[in-house]
Amino acid sequence: MEAFSDGVFSIAATLLVLDIALRPPGTALEQLRHAWPAYLGYLISFLTIGAAWLGHSAVTDRLLRADSLLLRINLLLLLVIAFLPFPTKLIAEGIHDTSGERVFVTLYGLTLLSIRLLGFALDAYARREHLYSTEHADEESQEELQADRGTLVPVIIAYGIAILVGLALPTLAVVLYLALAVFIVVPFGHIRDVLFKRS
Amino acid sequence: MEAFSDGVFSIAATLLVLDIALRPPGTALEQLRHAWPAYLGYLISFLTIGAAWLGHSAVTDRLLRADSLLLRINLLLLLVIAFLPFPTKLIAEGIHDTSGERVFVTLYGLTLLSIRLLGFALDAYARREHLYSTEHADEESQEELQADRGTLVPVIIAYGIAILVGLALPTLAVVLYLALAVFIVVPFGHIRDVLFKRS
Amino acid sequence: MEAFSDGVFSIAATLLVLDIALRPPGTALEQLRHAWPAYLGYLISFLTIGAAWLGHSAVTDRLLRADSLLLRINLLLLLVIAFLPFPTKLIAEGIHDTSGERVFVTLYGLTLLSIRLLGFALDAYARREHLYSTEHADEESQEELQADRGTLVPVIIAYGIAILVGLALPTLAVVLYLALAVFIVVPFGHIRDVLFKRS
Amino acid sequence: MEAFSDGVFSIAATLLVLDIALRPPGTALEQLRHAWPAYLGYLISFLTIGAAWLGHSAVTDRLLRADSLLLRINLLLLLVIAFLPFPTKLIAEGIHDTSGERVFVTLYGLTLLSIRLLGFALDAYARREHLYSTEHADEESQEELQADRGTLVPVIIAYGIAILVGLALPTLAVVLYLALAVFIVVPFGHIRDVLFKRS
Repeated sequence: MEAFSDGVFSIAATLLVLDIALRPPGTALEQLRHAWPAYLGYLISFLTIGAAWLGHSAVTDRLLRADSLLLRINLLLLLVIAFLPFPTKLIAEGIHDTSGERVFVTLYGLTLLSIRLLGFALDAYARREHLYSTEHADEESQEELQADRGTLVPVIIAYGIAILVGLALPTLAVVLYLALAVFIVVPFGHIRDVLFKRS
Repeated sequence: MEAFSDGVFSIAATLLVLDIALRPPGTALEQLRHAWPAYLGYLISFLTIGAAWLGHSAVTDRLLRADSLLLRINLLLLLVIAFLPFPTKLIAEGIHDTSGERVFVTLYGLTLLSIRLLGFALDAYARREHLYSTEHADEESQEELQADRGTLVPVIIAYGIAILVGLALPTLAVVLYLALAVFIVVPFGHIRDVLFKRS
Repeated sequence: MEAFSDGVFSIAATLLVLDIALRPPGTALEQLRHAWPAYLGYLISFLTIGAAWLGHSAVTDRLLRADSLLLRINLLLLLVIAFLPFPTKLIAEGIHDTSGERVFVTLYGLTLLSIRLLGFALDAYARREHLYSTEHADEESQEELQADRGTLVPVIIAYGIAILVGLALPTLAVVLYLALAVFIVVPFGHIRDVLFKRS
Repeated sequence: MEAFSDGVFSIAATLLVLDIALRPPGTALEQLRHAWPAYLGYLISFLTIGAAWLGHSAVTDRLLRADSLLLRINLLLLLVIAFLPFPTKLIAEGIHDTSGERVFVTLYGLTLLSIRLLGFALDAYARREHLYSTEHADEESQEELQADRGTLVPVIIAYGIAILVGLALPTLAVVLYLALAVFIVVPFGHIRDVLFKRS
């Protein structure tokens, strides 16, 4: 289960770069500047896949066995992960197009939220069916899972707000998605520990 | 054998997303709606690859050793898996084109059926040549293999019917392919157990 | 070393499918027929990568350790493997173009030969520097390596002839490349054993 | 951590080939010759990713455990690795375009330098937080790390000079990037040992 999943995560993350393209007219610098939605989409999607992979590998690290339903929930998560480069491309190309950007930003937000929810579902199902090992609990993945679980409700509310904001102000919604991705992936607590407590 | 195979499975599954593209004219919403064959193709092909991978990893889990002919049957399966994004693209682009859609849908159905048959062949060869471990039989993969074996004849009949239907009604055939992929990948028995028996 | 290499092998093999494309004008069937060089290129390149991977995994199976030069020879092999989709695309697109096809077919043949030679170099260096384990010799990979080593000179001669043929008759050269790839990948001896000796 | 990282490294390395394309007008041979910046970009980027992977796998080989901050530094490194095919494409397409080439070459150099610096950061963080195993020190990866550490300052200076040169003479800068990539990846000391000392 892990090799196939890690494959899909890493390929989806790396395919995102194909969504970045320059388009004439303009000088090289203008074209590079004009492609900012593509960089933003790359950053958000890469961090979202990265965060999903961190959670996923914490789950698989602690799994004692995988039953057939868990494998299918996993498959569903991978289906959405592998789909992400498409809405990312729509963001990259569509943000300058006022008629389409609301639709595209909403689709993008829903995809990001689905990834997060399916990650929670995988962990919840594994707990409900007692698939986790109780002994060999790697401390790091245990912490990672605990931290993730606490964020379920705030994350749903935050994505819900960002998606609603996107209906009126699509560009602001994309900035909120970035803030959320950074918030999920950056271990603020740990950084504080490393910088202050131990010194 | 497993790392290379898992690689091809996960890459082919993730490359499918490149077949989804919007094409003008129309508003953003109309373009998104108009691309429904692409979503359908993505779903069917992803689930078919997912199901093939589940069967494949059940085989490799139980393998004691791989002889050189098994490695080549495996290579043939991977050759068809890696080919799948091409007929999927034809479905995504061609379903609106009445002259081509029958040809494309037939090619797609034959590719899906080949994947299924080569999966069976891999398992059958491993059994015939006694390459399976008899002891260390992981219960889950054992069940997965047993369930798969029982579906050989019904699956061939069902794909055969869907391919014939496609000669007259291509869109209906694509819906049948989706039904088949869902039927193969969803563990109805297991879901029933989880929902009812254990409660 | 193995995970990165297996990754490059499987990705290069799966990216080949992106080189297959239909081009107007003509009916769907005519377009499909017209793309035959693309299918041929896919088949040859996939089998060549598959054969290179079989040899490569036989080498890594038997390795006791990898010194820094072996890692670099390996990197060079991967550089050519990852390059292969480009000449394959030239074959797919260029075979109908009489002015270019000789050049493209020659480049293709040289790339295929380089892959084969670098595979031999990896094995030869590992032997020369005593990097192989002498004990834990998996019989299958041992056989695979022995069989490969015997084919060095015939393979160089055969590719040399095919490349020369390609200067006059490019299409025939491509057929020869296919014959060579099939010859390298199909274990004729083993198939004979399975079909006749054991019955 | 290793499977996902190895996946991103190998996929980014293999996607580079998609940046190579021929463009009319001209004969086949002229088109092939005209694409030299694409080959150069492929070579530099592949070698840079290869060198980064060699350093990365030396780090992960020696790691005793990975804390959550190390996983994030790793994610940042992968983000830049996965981004590399984009500036490589700009080099491949833009080097003939005098207005854009300075901008593109500078962006390319900065990306290459970032990869190198993040590789150093990963190693430095692991040492600072005592995440390395002190016992099971594989001699090869130990040597690889030692050799890498000594090159930090020279590498920064060399990339800095190449980036500055690129503002005036972009093509020369690309040649310097190639020289740097070759210098980093080729184990001159080891080759000398193999060729002379042992004979």
